[in-house]
Amino acid sequence: MVLLEERIIKDGKVFPGNILKVDSFLNHQMDVKLLSEMGKEFKNIFSDCGVNRILTIEASGIGIACMTAQFFDCPLLFAKKTKTKNIANSVYKTQVASFTHATTYDVIVSKDFLNPGDKVLIIDDFLAEGNALLGLIDLCKQAGAEVVGCGIAIEKGFQQGRSRVEEAGIRVESLAIIESMEDGKVVFKRN
Amino acid sequence: MVLLEERIIKDGKVFPGNILKVDSFLNHQMDVKLLSEMGKEFKNIFSDCGVNRILTIEASGIGIACMTAQFFDCPLLFAKKTKTKNIANSVYKTQVASFTHATTYDVIVSKDFLNPGDKVLIIDDFLAEGNALLGLIDLCKQAGAEVVGCGIAIEKGFQQGRSRVEEAGIRVESLAIIESMEDGKVVFKRN
Repeated sequence: MVLLEERIIKDGKVFPGNILKVDSFLNHQMDVKLLSEMGKEFKNIFSDCGVNRILTIEASGIGIACMTAQFFDCPLLFAKKTKTKNIANSVYKTQVASFTHATTYDVIVSKDFLNPGDKVLIIDDFLAEGNALLGLIDLCKQAGAEVVGCGIAIEKGFQQGRSRVEEAGIRVESLAIIESMEDGKVVFKRN
Repeated sequence: MVLLEERIIKDGKVFPGNILKVDSFLNHQMDVKLLSEMGKEFKNIFSDCGVNRILTIEASGIGIACMTAQFFDCPLLFAKKTKTKNIANSVYKTQVASFTHATTYDVIVSKDFLNPGDKVLIIDDFLAEGNALLGLIDLCKQAGAEVVGCGIAIEKGFQQGRSRVEEAGIRVESLAIIESMEDGKVVFKRN
């Protein structure tokens, strides 16, 4: 998506360790016009999949997922991170390892809002190692819901996320795929 | 706002201890159409305030704030909760006590995105004791930004939040104000 790539070039900041900061428009401050255009693009990509629910994970995915849900005219569900030991049996639970924070946390959704037969589109801001997506896919599997695909804003194409999610049989569509970030210069992958 | 009150009556669940669960449409699963109507209402209420930035706190405020930012055609900034001890000096930081989780956490925003002269509308899903709002107001004060008001989805009118925020000189506008929840029956306050 040209609009997003141009914005990453203009306002993204590259730090050592292949860290890309896009907190001026995507995941701290949010440019809602851009997010809306991204939601429209996800609608174009997944228009014929019968999506009846958008699923994301708190917190930075919620904005894009909200905008996307507007175009699909369906509810948005966000999975919650928790460290609480005693989880009610009214939730589906999975574990997600966070590379950034060097920890593992439980991720939950209420059983009330994921059902057998649901056609779920998973939305997130970043795809790197794919741990969050695999966790969300596991929650859907527990519920008997079908994941029609994952819509990602920015994919780090040099990490293993895509191959791990595709190996689980799930379609991945990213609006911007970064091939490399050497010397502070972001290079996008072309199809 | 009649639409929200009707939805609370229809889908809200009251639990002992004055707990109102609205996680089927507001803060776990989100009805984006309803959220959009709420955003439009906030735009009507604060239309002449020169708002150039929406501020909320993760995670459940992000959806409503996103929808509201669409109507104001301005960026949305969400403050992050953190337990990290060593915070960079590139952020404004405040402390917020959580009644629900019986803990205190640091709340931060990047100094890059709150500036002197900004006219900030704070948006959140719930107002009870007002701790989160007072924290967000403090962040704006540190930045020299002006808070034009707080827009709340659901206010627990029998708790101290409104009076504490108004004592700080800040306007509070809530779309639904709950007067009481005795015997599982939600009664709204009428102006």
